[in-house]
Amino acid sequence: MNSSIEIPGGVTAPQSFTAGSVYAGIKAANTSKPDIAFVYSEIPAVAAGTFTTNKVKAAPVRVSQTNIRASETRAIVANSGNANACTGVVGIEHAKRMTKAAAKALGLKEKQLLVCSTGRIGVALPIEKMEAAIAQAPQVLAHDGSLRAAQAIMTSDTKPKEIAVEITLHGKKVRIGGIAKGAGMIDPNMATMLCFITTDAAISKKLLQQATSDAVEQSFNRITIDGDMSTNDTVLVLANGAAGNLPLQDGQREFDRFQNALNHVCCALARMIVEDGEGVSKYVTIQIRGAKTRQDARKAAEAIANSTLTKCCWFGGDPNWGRVMDAIGYSMARIREENVDIYYDGLIAVKNGMAAPTPFSKLKEVVANPRFTITVDLHMGAADYTVFTTDLTTAYVEFNMGE
Amino acid sequence: MNSSIEIPGGVTAPQSFTAGSVYAGIKAANTSKPDIAFVYSEIPAVAAGTFTTNKVKAAPVRVSQTNIRASETRAIVANSGNANACTGVVGIEHAKRMTKAAAKALGLKEKQLLVCSTGRIGVALPIEKMEAAIAQAPQVLAHDGSLRAAQAIMTSDTKPKEIAVEITLHGKKVRIGGIAKGAGMIDPNMATMLCFITTDAAISKKLLQQATSDAVEQSFNRITIDGDMSTNDTVLVLANGAAGNLPLQDGQREFDRFQNALNHVCCALARMIVEDGEGVSKYVTIQIRGAKTRQDARKAAEAIANSTLTKCCWFGGDPNWGRVMDAIGYSMARIREENVDIYYDGLIAVKNGMAAPTPFSKLKEVVANPRFTITVDLHMGAADYTVFTTDLTTAYVEFNMGE
Repeated sequence: MNSSIEIPGGVTAPQSFTAGSVYAGIKAANTSKPDIAFVYSEIPAVAAGTFTTNKVKAAPVRVSQTNIRASETRAIVANSGNANACTGVVGIEHAKRMTKAAAKALGLKEKQLLVCSTGRIGVALPIEKMEAAIAQAPQVLAHDGSLRAAQAIMTSDTKPKEIAVEITLHGKKVRIGGIAKGAGMIDPNMATMLCFITTDAAISKKLLQQATSDAVEQSFNRITIDGDMSTNDTVLVLANGAAGNLPLQDGQREFDRFQNALNHVCCALARMIVEDGEGVSKYVTIQIRGAKTRQDARKAAEAIANSTLTKCCWFGGDPNWGRVMDAIGYSMARIREENVDIYYDGLIAVKNGMAAPTPFSKLKEVVANPRFTITVDLHMGAADYTVFTTDLTTAYVEFNMGE
Repeated sequence: MNSSIEIPGGVTAPQSFTAGSVYAGIKAANTSKPDIAFVYSEIPAVAAGTFTTNKVKAAPVRVSQTNIRASETRAIVANSGNANACTGVVGIEHAKRMTKAAAKALGLKEKQLLVCSTGRIGVALPIEKMEAAIAQAPQVLAHDGSLRAAQAIMTSDTKPKEIAVEITLHGKKVRIGGIAKGAGMIDPNMATMLCFITTDAAISKKLLQQATSDAVEQSFNRITIDGDMSTNDTVLVLANGAAGNLPLQDGQREFDRFQNALNHVCCALARMIVEDGEGVSKYVTIQIRGAKTRQDARKAAEAIANSTLTKCCWFGGDPNWGRVMDAIGYSMARIREENVDIYYDGLIAVKNGMAAPTPFSKLKEVVANPRFTITVDLHMGAADYTVFTTDLTTAYVEFNMGE
């Protein structure tokens, strides 16, 4: 699918990017884990981003949505432990103070900063402590700082998530790196998926936004753990051109290869997020084929992926195709019951809407695996759609039941 | 709200109705619990019904949707242990053979029968055993048979569900009785909410359908345990006029009182279903007020009621209004974050989209109760909507994880 090679280094793999973290003590709990991350381009860069479509948006989302319109972006400042969501005008003021503190520390303009928060909803940030911590940014930014930044944005994640890839464009080595934190939730009032990507490719702001939107659609928009979309979800991409390639143009083969590499980074991070979701024991791919339209395929896929009943039976290792049929039926996708075929890792479970002769024990073997694929052919047309999801476990409920 | 008095007797409380059950051995498990229920009107009756809108419909749903068009309906035959869903043309044939066997036993025409099934999806009915059992119908029908019929349709329900009410219309005592089985799910491939209601009111078929649709909209359509809509959900109402009231007319006060009594029966059964859902530990009412339209109110209410995250935290006794805000935000209802107020049993938790001063400990006391109400005022208009739901518990997951 693409010729990108995975390399170490995360967001600091691309040239002229640094990253790092500081400890501000945002969480009440007595911990010394760094809780503010920085990603910084040493030279001018352009930014692209996608933000939660939830109508309840955290303050940093609103501030970043404004700042990202600037022609030049230089850095991201992000904290864990507090989402700065449902915090009103004070929240907006605090998000701006984060950008101001970082701009001052790094000698930048406020609007050259993007800001993110993840953690508890509805509580004001301890902004003075944070400003003092942010002032230390120049001392912590380093060319090997990606992992430290990835760790500082972790909340319920059990491991940091980072990846980098290298491709050659116009004879120049171009790198794309990313860090992310999970959409799984554990603490009361926690939410949020964050992903920061850097690249040293030379690309216009406009084309970078197009590439970012496409990559997000193929990756982060295809994952669902519990169907709950957070107030803070954000993907940010910075491109600084340090690789020295000829600026990418839409329609070029080089641009396609850049897009594939960016998709690779986003898909890998999305998969890491799903696999590290709380209480997750199975990683399940839902493929819909033969739908009348892509929208129909998507409705069917999302209904299956978000059904608590299908997710519970995967946890139990029960194929239970009846629940898959049921979810397809109420999904609002246009279907004909008698057209539906369902496969578990290629083994046919349902033919023409009825039980196929594959022995139940064989289907159980598939669902016993930690990773499997359910393919549904609706035989209504030629559209398809794929989503990536998980089971629903007692551990998930225990993680999310609060205090 | 209405002047109906609750009385014993369930579906056999109204005059000239009998009910009963037989054992056919439908389930593989070694049990002698009766698994086929009958509800029978000794005199001509009219029928109304509402059926699942799932595009995957069980065979008995399709057969009943045809038969209910007949001007006269006399009886319902229903089995538990097998849903006769995803069973193709054989399933349709089997559902018809159920009506044929019952018609023969009771001296009726096939089209005067309605048929329902609940239980495992995708397995053929053991139709010969069932036909032999159905032949015993005349021997088991009795004027005190409601409870036995209610027991025969139980699957994962822990208790039978029945109710009857009495009102006086035009000086005549009119009764409405009902039995139901739950929407909760336990066995692999199980689904289905069934509700059978009888009344001795004199009412036209057309007006009975209108009254039934309205009552279902106020009751069964407002409950959600897991957001999964079954392939078999069915509500059937038979009215035989034995009370001798003047036939009800739309717009009359008597009709309004009948409607209220029917709503009372449906709401009581709906509540019994929710409270008996598997693994349920809390019964939660979600009230949306001040929405721009009723549709907006409904979207917001259903998003909160179906959020796995809100449901998990209710189980844990955690108010977690941040998750309620989050669900409202992604619900597609038109909202303004800064307009939203949220109350827990009348205590304000969120004012203008931000934390209100009510101590967290007070909100926790509310959510510690087995029943509580979350009220959301969107301050966008005058429309409202209410749904009834439950928490999501580790016991639910364990019940539904299959073998």
